[in-house]
Amino acid sequence: MAQLSLEDTRILAQNILRHHDFSEEQVAAIADVMVAGQRDECASHGLYRLLGCIATLNAGKVVPDAQPEIIDVAPALLKVDAKGGFSPLAFRRGLPLALEKARQNGLSAFAINHCVHFSALWVEIEDITAAGMVALACNPSHAWVAPAGGSKPLFGTNPFAFGWPRAGQLPFVFDFATSAIARGDIELHRREERPVPLGWGINDGGQPTTDAAAILSGAMLTFGGHKGSALSAMIELIAGPLIGDFTSAESKDWDHGAGALPYHGELIIILDPQRFLGDQATEHLARAEPLFTAMAQNGRLPSQRRYEARQRSQQQGITLPDTLYRDLLALLD
Amino acid sequence: MAQLSLEDTRILAQNILRHHDFSEEQVAAIADVMVAGQRDECASHGLYRLLGCIATLNAGKVVPDAQPEIIDVAPALLKVDAKGGFSPLAFRRGLPLALEKARQNGLSAFAINHCVHFSALWVEIEDITAAGMVALACNPSHAWVAPAGGSKPLFGTNPFAFGWPRAGQLPFVFDFATSAIARGDIELHRREERPVPLGWGINDGGQPTTDAAAILSGAMLTFGGHKGSALSAMIELIAGPLIGDFTSAESKDWDHGAGALPYHGELIIILDPQRFLGDQATEHLARAEPLFTAMAQNGRLPSQRRYEARQRSQQQGITLPDTLYRDLLALLD
Repeated sequence: MAQLSLEDTRILAQNILRHHDFSEEQVAAIADVMVAGQRDECASHGLYRLLGCIATLNAGKVVPDAQPEIIDVAPALLKVDAKGGFSPLAFRRGLPLALEKARQNGLSAFAINHCVHFSALWVEIEDITAAGMVALACNPSHAWVAPAGGSKPLFGTNPFAFGWPRAGQLPFVFDFATSAIARGDIELHRREERPVPLGWGINDGGQPTTDAAAILSGAMLTFGGHKGSALSAMIELIAGPLIGDFTSAESKDWDHGAGALPYHGELIIILDPQRFLGDQATEHLARAEPLFTAMAQNGRLPSQRRYEARQRSQQQGITLPDTLYRDLLALLD
Repeated sequence: MAQLSLEDTRILAQNILRHHDFSEEQVAAIADVMVAGQRDECASHGLYRLLGCIATLNAGKVVPDAQPEIIDVAPALLKVDAKGGFSPLAFRRGLPLALEKARQNGLSAFAINHCVHFSALWVEIEDITAAGMVALACNPSHAWVAPAGGSKPLFGTNPFAFGWPRAGQLPFVFDFATSAIARGDIELHRREERPVPLGWGINDGGQPTTDAAAILSGAMLTFGGHKGSALSAMIELIAGPLIGDFTSAESKDWDHGAGALPYHGELIIILDPQRFLGDQATEHLARAEPLFTAMAQNGRLPSQRRYEARQRSQQQGITLPDTLYRDLLALLD
């Protein structure tokens, strides 16, 4: 295992991106998101993602020096056109105006268009809760998931994330795929030739199966049956056609078998508790705390594992598996 | 079975409400919602609800002549204080301004406060999609549902609803409880002394059970494990403290064992596709249609059963079980 400080982790990520001609602003925004993932021990959203990002670049499917453009659409609505770059810089560019619009109007909608997507939504959610705001975010991905009752892939793994700021504490944040399980977990079972639990997916005849390979060539399933499926459909709609961007099926078609990271949009809704509650904000936000206490009593809050990992990483740095570290260093050749 | 035209159904509901001294505006708004439920064969949201409404009135837990007050909070945000009345009139009063704010700003948030709640959210969602808008709505209820990993009731059955307007067709609408099943279904199993499936709830020791009575004195579970639980927590927060209103636990405390309909708030978010998409709206909204086609291919769209019932009811009227019809007529004594 390679042991790195958080600062060295950041420098490694930045150097790899620079080596591949990403612009300095793109380098900074992308590296920050990956370091956050690594720091919180979300390995699949950590430096591992550099492999996919560089592969996507090599496939000609991302613009390394894209200059995102802010489009002020309506008093409470902005879009940032990522211009074919990765999403983090587009998010960073648009965030100040999105927060300002929420403060002005009570809430705002912040759409990111034409971006290549690899980042976890919780990273963005935490930037918003840090400003004292409540946030919802979602995006489509690639069509790998069948709708309830269906047998063919239609939806993406469509993550849905939410954040709520807490006075003097880390925010309440969740971020889940609306698929029953992440696609990466099914890939892992296939590589290890292990059966998956029933409910993760169906074969290409639409039949339930525990065979990971059969699911990857068939279809994944949503979590929570027809309710999870409905939620996934909503995400396709509000983070697809509503913002003038691809559905998961359209994103997969656009990829044309290149296996690049998905290209689509993202929708974020920001709500300002200060505007909702005025001078009663402190009093009412305090009434949320018993909910968190009760939730933590017999389980853990959705982000608790991440926050514990964060504390460890901040004290001790992070570790990378040797093979991953070698693969990353090879990207500097 | 009693057979009634839709018009006679409306008159019956109105007469019962008038007989119990609801104001004319309250009568009209409440009866419309109940007739819509009966028409779409959502029996539990049809005229059956009059029994609970009058019982709630008799328990002193609803104001029959409440005059909802519109509070214009911020450019994209309004609240309607229902003043302790049922929610439908508050919704009706606030809707024009909520739509206008969405048109002006791109989206709007519409909170209803201090209302007694019996209505299905899809009725309101359809009023919003009829104006060409996209809508999300949710509300807490009474604390009957344990969070993931927990053993004590904390969340309500917390419905989440969504609507998307479709050119020349009935809208795409879903409306589901974030509990695994409606509380009424568990009640029904208890009355009939039938076991319920595992996953609906736990006994008061926190153990999974198929005993309906044990669940009703223990806790219901959410749909979809920790993901459904996270969604239910979000609803508690954004339709509770964020709008300055009760959580499900606070609503249950307020009821104080009276068994009245829940008293709390509701949050609706309205998004205007015309503002999001400008002169490209028609083109982009058309890209949503293949999603609906694919979803309908092997299953049915979430509201299809309701729409089929609606067509039947519009042609043939509705039927009420004799016992329910007698119970309703008794409310006129």
